[in-house]
Amino acid sequence: MDQVVAENGVQQVELLTAVNDDHGGVIVEMKEPMDSEVFLSRLRASISKWKLQGKKGVWIKLPVGLVNLVEPAVKEGFWYHHAEPHYLMLVYWIPETANTIPANATHRVGVGAIVMNDKKEEKSGKFQGTGVWKIPTGVVDEGEDIFAAAAREVKEETGVSDETDDVFVLHFLPICITDRSEMMGIYYFRSTAEFVEILAFRQFHKSFFDKSDLFFLCMLHPLSFDIQKQELEIEAAQWIPFEEYAAQPFTQKHSLFKYISEICLAKVERDYVGFTPLPITSFFDDRVSYLYLNNHDLSR
Amino acid sequence: MDQVVAENGVQQVELLTAVNDDHGGVIVEMKEPMDSEVFLSRLRASISKWKLQGKKGVWIKLPVGLVNLVEPAVKEGFWYHHAEPHYLMLVYWIPETANTIPANATHRVGVGAIVMNDKKEEKSGKFQGTGVWKIPTGVVDEGEDIFAAAAREVKEETGVSDETDDVFVLHFLPICITDRSEMMGIYYFRSTAEFVEILAFRQFHKSFFDKSDLFFLCMLHPLSFDIQKQELEIEAAQWIPFEEYAAQPFTQKHSLFKYISEICLAKVERDYVGFTPLPITSFFDDRVSYLYLNNHDLSR
Repeated sequence: MDQVVAENGVQQVELLTAVNDDHGGVIVEMKEPMDSEVFLSRLRASISKWKLQGKKGVWIKLPVGLVNLVEPAVKEGFWYHHAEPHYLMLVYWIPETANTIPANATHRVGVGAIVMNDKKEEKSGKFQGTGVWKIPTGVVDEGEDIFAAAAREVKEETGVSDETDDVFVLHFLPICITDRSEMMGIYYFRSTAEFVEILAFRQFHKSFFDKSDLFFLCMLHPLSFDIQKQELEIEAAQWIPFEEYAAQPFTQKHSLFKYISEICLAKVERDYVGFTPLPITSFFDDRVSYLYLNNHDLSR
Repeated sequence: MDQVVAENGVQQVELLTAVNDDHGGVIVEMKEPMDSEVFLSRLRASISKWKLQGKKGVWIKLPVGLVNLVEPAVKEGFWYHHAEPHYLMLVYWIPETANTIPANATHRVGVGAIVMNDKKEEKSGKFQGTGVWKIPTGVVDEGEDIFAAAAREVKEETGVSDETDDVFVLHFLPICITDRSEMMGIYYFRSTAEFVEILAFRQFHKSFFDKSDLFFLCMLHPLSFDIQKQELEIEAAQWIPFEEYAAQPFTQKHSLFKYISEICLAKVERDYVGFTPLPITSFFDDRVSYLYLNNHDLSR
């Protein structure tokens, strides 16, 4: 190579393969292994070209297998933008102006699902006079809608899936309600449920390192429902009156649980209204997303 | 060093400095530069010790200046957890069991702020008969509460701060309402405002790469308010009736904007109720976080 360069008097360096992004920048998605020196020379030549082209942000996505290319990129002025288990995203800003690189994700999103029979079903269903509260919880997957995550968690944690009819033990205390006299206990559940609304949500900071959590308390309506007392923990499965539940030091001390029980009571007794999802189309393309709002007040 | 090792017959390797986390793991926060070979040997020795101690997750935080240590860590089995401009967080799981490493953040959180005079002020204020809608938007900073971000954005974008009395041009079309006859135009605003409630929120996927956005539409009440028509763009500043605004192809086509105007109308005419923040204490410690709920329905 050196000889070729000498003969031509011009250095022939291949450029990195890049695609344009929607904001005047380029994205380099490295896939094949590359020697770090080769990468460095190609990166330098590519940046020179992008500079001439007036490009702004430069993104380099490095799979974990190409970890040898992290150091040369950083030494050329790239910094970390975000990382997932299988890749690291680096970014660089070419113009002299302040960069408009988008912020990194700051929040994890979780859901808690309360499954409740409505009053009519309470009076006619198998468990006459009872509405049953349960709170499976979980993390919203990347790209998953909140309402979909809530329904999935109910299905997963109550053990009803397409593959199996097994019923798993629940790792929480469901609260059961008989009109105004609420009860709680530990039960087996079988349930599939449809999303009704978001009752409330909580923002909590520094949940891990400097990241925050948003936890959405969702209400669902059971489509199928079966409940069995759990034989193994019979002691914990006794019914207790709501007043006794609410008066427990645990409930009283932790305002989150106190509010949850108050919201549930307000839902049953006073038609508490939360936010329901409505599909909306994107400003930029035809993608559907969801707007959660008080549809009761909007529609009346 | 080699000679000392030979005399003792035992290799003396320093260990990495680590602190315990709350989940049976350890956190190594690297601060000083280190040769990558030295780091590798200390890392191996440290992992052996942690294994004997029954430790689970191992976190290594590497500032961008110590990029030379990324490759040895990955080659020892570490993977990326998350990254910020100034550091990379790597993680490793010692036990044979499935790892319980927490998920990475998946969402950016944004706010849009509608500042509205209440009806009484509309009739007595400087702009009699007008309630004024404006929507400054912005990203919620790491560790920032949604309601605080909304108030900050209003203050920043309307140019009223402790440092300066400058008033900046707004980069959006505020909508002004005269009872049932809504208007819009481009104006200068001076305003500080207090948070009232979250009217609605939107979840939107793949907003950048695989991350999602949560956008909270907030309503604020002006504490101070001053409005001036923007001289430079006088053409755009004309008032138009709400019906004309709502009938625009732009508004009709984009359901988000349509819903926003409908929610604003419902707020003025039919007392639409959103979610307000209530302080709650943490389950684990005394830290305060906020639960957003329909306090109107909860309190009545």
